[in-house]
Amino acid sequence: MIIVLKSGVSDPEVADICQRVRDLGYQPHTIRGEVKTVIAAVGEERGQPDLRLLEALETVEAVMPVQQPFKLASRETRGEPTEIGINGVTVGGGRVPVMAGPCSVESEAQVLEVAEAVKAAGASILRGGAYKPRTSPYAFQGLKEQGLRYLAEARKRTGLPVVTEVLETESVELVAEYADILQIGARNVQNFTLLRRVGETGKPVLLKRGMATSIQEFLLSAEYVLSAGNRQVMLCERGIRTFETSTRFTLDLNAVPVLKKLSHLPVVVDPSHGTGHWDLVAPMAKAAVACGADALIIEVHPRPAEALSDGPQSLKPSRFAQLVRELRPVAEAVGRTL
Amino acid sequence: MIIVLKSGVSDPEVADICQRVRDLGYQPHTIRGEVKTVIAAVGEERGQPDLRLLEALETVEAVMPVQQPFKLASRETRGEPTEIGINGVTVGGGRVPVMAGPCSVESEAQVLEVAEAVKAAGASILRGGAYKPRTSPYAFQGLKEQGLRYLAEARKRTGLPVVTEVLETESVELVAEYADILQIGARNVQNFTLLRRVGETGKPVLLKRGMATSIQEFLLSAEYVLSAGNRQVMLCERGIRTFETSTRFTLDLNAVPVLKKLSHLPVVVDPSHGTGHWDLVAPMAKAAVACGADALIIEVHPRPAEALSDGPQSLKPSRFAQLVRELRPVAEAVGRTL
Amino acid sequence: MIIVLKSGVSDPEVADICQRVRDLGYQPHTIRGEVKTVIAAVGEERGQPDLRLLEALETVEAVMPVQQPFKLASRETRGEPTEIGINGVTVGGGRVPVMAGPCSVESEAQVLEVAEAVKAAGASILRGGAYKPRTSPYAFQGLKEQGLRYLAEARKRTGLPVVTEVLETESVELVAEYADILQIGARNVQNFTLLRRVGETGKPVLLKRGMATSIQEFLLSAEYVLSAGNRQVMLCERGIRTFETSTRFTLDLNAVPVLKKLSHLPVVVDPSHGTGHWDLVAPMAKAAVACGADALIIEVHPRPAEALSDGPQSLKPSRFAQLVRELRPVAEAVGRTL
Amino acid sequence: MIIVLKSGVSDPEVADICQRVRDLGYQPHTIRGEVKTVIAAVGEERGQPDLRLLEALETVEAVMPVQQPFKLASRETRGEPTEIGINGVTVGGGRVPVMAGPCSVESEAQVLEVAEAVKAAGASILRGGAYKPRTSPYAFQGLKEQGLRYLAEARKRTGLPVVTEVLETESVELVAEYADILQIGARNVQNFTLLRRVGETGKPVLLKRGMATSIQEFLLSAEYVLSAGNRQVMLCERGIRTFETSTRFTLDLNAVPVLKKLSHLPVVVDPSHGTGHWDLVAPMAKAAVACGADALIIEVHPRPAEALSDGPQSLKPSRFAQLVRELRPVAEAVGRTL
Repeated sequence: MIIVLKSGVSDPEVADICQRVRDLGYQPHTIRGEVKTVIAAVGEERGQPDLRLLEALETVEAVMPVQQPFKLASRETRGEPTEIGINGVTVGGGRVPVMAGPCSVESEAQVLEVAEAVKAAGASILRGGAYKPRTSPYAFQGLKEQGLRYLAEARKRTGLPVVTEVLETESVELVAEYADILQIGARNVQNFTLLRRVGETGKPVLLKRGMATSIQEFLLSAEYVLSAGNRQVMLCERGIRTFETSTRFTLDLNAVPVLKKLSHLPVVVDPSHGTGHWDLVAPMAKAAVACGADALIIEVHPRPAEALSDGPQSLKPSRFAQLVRELRPVAEAVGRTL
Repeated sequence: MIIVLKSGVSDPEVADICQRVRDLGYQPHTIRGEVKTVIAAVGEERGQPDLRLLEALETVEAVMPVQQPFKLASRETRGEPTEIGINGVTVGGGRVPVMAGPCSVESEAQVLEVAEAVKAAGASILRGGAYKPRTSPYAFQGLKEQGLRYLAEARKRTGLPVVTEVLETESVELVAEYADILQIGARNVQNFTLLRRVGETGKPVLLKRGMATSIQEFLLSAEYVLSAGNRQVMLCERGIRTFETSTRFTLDLNAVPVLKKLSHLPVVVDPSHGTGHWDLVAPMAKAAVACGADALIIEVHPRPAEALSDGPQSLKPSRFAQLVRELRPVAEAVGRTL
Repeated sequence: MIIVLKSGVSDPEVADICQRVRDLGYQPHTIRGEVKTVIAAVGEERGQPDLRLLEALETVEAVMPVQQPFKLASRETRGEPTEIGINGVTVGGGRVPVMAGPCSVESEAQVLEVAEAVKAAGASILRGGAYKPRTSPYAFQGLKEQGLRYLAEARKRTGLPVVTEVLETESVELVAEYADILQIGARNVQNFTLLRRVGETGKPVLLKRGMATSIQEFLLSAEYVLSAGNRQVMLCERGIRTFETSTRFTLDLNAVPVLKKLSHLPVVVDPSHGTGHWDLVAPMAKAAVACGADALIIEVHPRPAEALSDGPQSLKPSRFAQLVRELRPVAEAVGRTL
Repeated sequence: MIIVLKSGVSDPEVADICQRVRDLGYQPHTIRGEVKTVIAAVGEERGQPDLRLLEALETVEAVMPVQQPFKLASRETRGEPTEIGINGVTVGGGRVPVMAGPCSVESEAQVLEVAEAVKAAGASILRGGAYKPRTSPYAFQGLKEQGLRYLAEARKRTGLPVVTEVLETESVELVAEYADILQIGARNVQNFTLLRRVGETGKPVLLKRGMATSIQEFLLSAEYVLSAGNRQVMLCERGIRTFETSTRFTLDLNAVPVLKKLSHLPVVVDPSHGTGHWDLVAPMAKAAVACGADALIIEVHPRPAEALSDGPQSLKPSRFAQLVRELRPVAEAVGRTL
């Protein structure tokens, strides 16, 4: 940590801060500049008391960390990329799997129809929501356990592993019985109890970035899962909130190379939620693969204008099939396969 | 809802959309302009299927709601302001109570010391966190039930009612046993299961706005609590995330008059989290009262530079006492008392 | 326009608003819903008085436009994409040209060195700043006319057309004498006098999106240039300002398909300014091409750590050459060439 | 500056960076931590080459400034607050003057009517736009010099000094002939040529913060005016762009105490543009005064629903008069007068 002192701080005040630094377990080095005095506090920052509390002192202007606060998620801890295997599908390797399916599981017929269609089109994992976090209490909230059973049936018929969202700690066990990948939604990215609980299951986790979650906070949320002993975490960019209203969110593809630089965990991109419009899904899916995404997750519905949720951002199966065809050469152009 | 069609849509296509509107339970009115055709769909929008799914059609350019989607939280449902009584303290009336206390409960001595100090200074409600949502898994996570017991002891000694955060559904009952007000933190503002659960307790709820929660979404989160049968909801502005980094968050005081225009629920302001710097708390607290806040919630710690969380934004008791003195004339200037 | 009235508005008040709508040259259609009354105002909105001023009435809740406010920039006005020819290079066609060069022109030797290098690597247009808009008055402000002369010399030697920024109305003529493309920087995107002036020159214009410019505002800025009689406008996405600090700006690639859907103008992407870090330029350049960008503009400097501006986001010539090689298959994957 | 090196950097690489630091005129101090090595570069940062260019090196992870980059605008340069006198009105002292008037000057009758009304209500300075920066080229662009003449006539009749916007360098001299205060609009906050030019006039300047301008950039823009020899700069907060759409912009009142902490320049608040809705102007004006604003600037129009610009955010004269009455006790509550 670097502690920047206010101008005009006296020698005894500097000594007092140095003593506090020592008391917190760090070694202080004072550097007196022409204008500012700074104290470099040397020591392992992670897992230690946060020196930023020294900002509470009137003699301190700012405290600036020099290390990233996450450890297990960091490239410095593990150099090679993490590969996660899910019933024969690998996320994080040379192949870029596509997860696809409806936003919500609406009926057995619907989920089976979509599962067959996306499998035929080239998807390797089936997505579908049984527990739905909805902004309004008056909106469809999901079929819950019934929906999980339909997903399991679709897996049985198609062989596609299933990713589905877990909304709350009480249903972690139940969802983990049915799902191959536990999804943590954007609104739960800092639901730390839930993160620990899914960490304890040992199941692969798809962790979505929140709409106002910084990259650093996102990796700290992953750290909650990792530090519970579960190394199978996929990071999913799904759009952040900005001033722009022509898209539902602003899909932040910059996050892909940034995350891959800082972390060894695989990165998934969700262009459906990220843009909110079906006609933007294809170009942004291609862009995601081009900048290094390890997988995609895409909403597909046979009749989007009748969907119980997220119709406007869902692709029809025929368009999805065309997108998969168009994605193949893009993956190859960056040295991967689809 | 207003459905704006794409240019060049044919008559049969318009008829198809009108039929879909009828099927969803609304009455369509078509208006043909020089450039655009729009369909006004007349009917009660709340609690009904959301016409926005028609955006999934290729013939539709946009669907624009004309009603606010919340009902119980709305001024149109209830004209007069809601007043919430907590052991003799009223939030939402002519008096502007101040809630104060440490970010985290750290020890019995600490919470008792702060409780006595803030009571002497003029606070009417004691705040303090026993369950702490921390960005990093390596940071102090709170004393949990032990912390609740210390808060209860502080209430016994000072008579101050207690507001404390509930982090997860499993501990709602436990926290509700000890607390007078259940706080839902910013990171849980769209944890819909938790919202329903605190709604079912019937206890007063302090609902914090998330860092990327729009006013409309915020009121829909309140609607979850209200629709569980609990009318005692306080809305708390605590800073949103913007590009500006000179403050930890951007305290959005505009939310105060906007919320009071749209809703009958009382509005609380948290200048400590909203700014992140103790020396900005006083001016922003005064501004909050001046623009109509119904209550304040402020972090106070006897030794901020040793606090286990949020030291940099905590006031020392003496500064807090001075702030309360300075707030009184501001409250009176806008026709209220402190 | 759709005018949404407040609940409880009386018949004479509705009549008054309808009369105001007529006075402003529109035909009103009143639709009475169960909860809300709305008035649809039919007529050409563009170039007409803006009905949004009716929001000033206490009887009006909101006024919602149904047409995009730009005309000449719109796909509805011109269906086929605009191609812009610059000395034999076409922007907006099947080929995706790369503009490259230093942020600032620093010396004749430097610009000649870079120009030769980027040409050899496959760039088709030379970029370089002679007039520099710098956040601090103490930073290097550019070589001005001297810099323009060096750029012209580089063009003479390499044959590459030159794009360079024009900062102020007084120097439009001078810059237009030397440059092949006039660049309007992000900070001038709403400098309307400058937009008109470059419009009058008839020279191709590269218009950069501002860091807080919405897509709609961006196209209205283009409309200023177009309505001055100049149809040769390229729209350049270069990063918007969000809460995320791991990149200098957030390159908003969603803007590429959104702009191409709304407008016929070609879209250029600047991954150097958009990310601010040289090691993010390559992945984001590939993503830009994959989602449909018509051209790229990239900063290249022989010795970035000695650059007078923007060193951290500049590529060395060897890395640039490698990027161009890697971009070719990506362009082909989406049916284009580089 | 603090230069944080990448993990695993070798001794010769550290020596190379130290040499570069020396070459740039700073003294390097190397601190080796357990995980990271940092180099503190000691020296005056302002007006010097920016060490951040060392981020271009592959051995450098980040460069962090420890000094604010502005000098003349800083409290460290000048401790006591700057007071600016304008024909007998002082901004920055114990009194909080109110600037009021129409968004646009529309006719002589209109500006005279408003000027008389706001003077009677207690305003001390007349605002009004003769040159209007409009998002759309089809919107009313102002009466230009004619408008300036009407403003001068209004000053003659009422004695109120005039603040009006200058849009472009060519009209600086002309506007300076008529105006008492030159306003730089939000869209021109980084139009550095214009900033220098108004600096050279020596006239008081009202500098509006841009919608995506950080506090630091804002003060650097002020530095352009100050370093041209003009010390009479007022900083005006007028709303920033965020994700929230219930207000036109998000008026960032936090900027008031932050600016007053960092700078000696007076701070003005514009609640009209900041919120975009007339019914939010009064509460936010009170909040602005409560948190320390030195002046207010408010739009007033006799018939807002017929205004040629910004009607929805304009107050009628009677409401403005009421607001001034309500502001007086708020000013007194914070030790000032109105």
